[in-house]
Amino acid sequence: MQPRRWAVLIPVAALVTGALALHSQSPARAAAPQFDSRGRLMLPKDYREWIFLSSGLGMTYGAPETNRQPNFDDVFVSPPAYREFVNAGHWPEHTVFILEQRRSSARGSVNGGSVGHYQSDLIGLSAAVKDSRRSPDGSGWAYFGFGLKTDPAPALPKTAACYSCHGQNAAVENTFVQFYPTLLPVARAKGTLKPNFRKVIE
Amino acid sequence: MQPRRWAVLIPVAALVTGALALHSQSPARAAAPQFDSRGRLMLPKDYREWIFLSSGLGMTYGAPETNRQPNFDDVFVSPPAYREFVNAGHWPEHTVFILEQRRSSARGSVNGGSVGHYQSDLIGLSAAVKDSRRSPDGSGWAYFGFGLKTDPAPALPKTAACYSCHGQNAAVENTFVQFYPTLLPVARAKGTLKPNFRKVIE
Repeated sequence: MQPRRWAVLIPVAALVTGALALHSQSPARAAAPQFDSRGRLMLPKDYREWIFLSSGLGMTYGAPETNRQPNFDDVFVSPPAYREFVNAGHWPEHTVFILEQRRSSARGSVNGGSVGHYQSDLIGLSAAVKDSRRSPDGSGWAYFGFGLKTDPAPALPKTAACYSCHGQNAAVENTFVQFYPTLLPVARAKGTLKPNFRKVIE
Repeated sequence: MQPRRWAVLIPVAALVTGALALHSQSPARAAAPQFDSRGRLMLPKDYREWIFLSSGLGMTYGAPETNRQPNFDDVFVSPPAYREFVNAGHWPEHTVFILEQRRSSARGSVNGGSVGHYQSDLIGLSAAVKDSRRSPDGSGWAYFGFGLKTDPAPALPKTAACYSCHGQNAAVENTFVQFYPTLLPVARAKGTLKPNFRKVIE
């Protein structure tokens, strides 16, 4: 190829790379965890556009709650991590989970006379990140509590209940795949359920 | 520019276009409703990667259910429609909603002793599509019931309860935005709540 052709091709190649890079910045793709200079996790702004894994009502997170006003929890995971799990049954480094807790309501249009519950106000946000360099307890995972703020949050200390509860009870690594109905069959098929968890269900 | 430069640029431009088109075919983007030759809606294979709007437990869909074994419902919407709603407070033509119903379970690891419910087996799938040419009742919306099958489904007839219930009770157009906690504030801000619904809540 002659030099003059390179003169045309190089800027074109730069344009292609730039276009693809810009395209890759769409909300669902920029999903690696971001930390500030003090190592605090930034709340991902677009987690509501991530992959929804499941929700529960009245599940025990933190202090036991009464059944009168149970809370919903919604779990979202970063899209590249989800795709890796579907393919291989495990979570890649830099997986991010967001747990959203919301109040439930049982009054409202259509549902007014029934026993149903639907989701209302946000009451707290937490995150779990798979990052072997940032895990306080050496499990490979770190937990973060945002509460109702959007400020960056430091990793919770290894004495926080998240570490021991996830470590002891989760079905795959530190994650409660037993509550994610589309992923539990994947873990069974890929053989990635933890031995302790297999004992419980078999 | 000399002809020989075009000879280089045209295949490169084709490559760029091809690369971008391929990139755009990622699951979250190919979200327009697909119909077969008989006008039946094809179940979108990747709806679990769409935008999650909310879930409920024991909400009244179809026959009233007892509270002993309430069902969860999960609502997903096609990503381009979600982004349009966030910007403008209304749904664009070709919006697709998928309603997933799942059994609830109250027994399992961690949650064994509590009163909580989490999601388990899929028990049915339905869809709502905004398509002015396919709406049996002229509302602009059409409803489809897949049940547990993945076969294409015809639009339900206009006598089906979905049409009257959504038409009379939904907060924005035919959609139950009153149960989608991240979208209700958008509809309020954009002034797109239906007058009948505003009367109920004000």
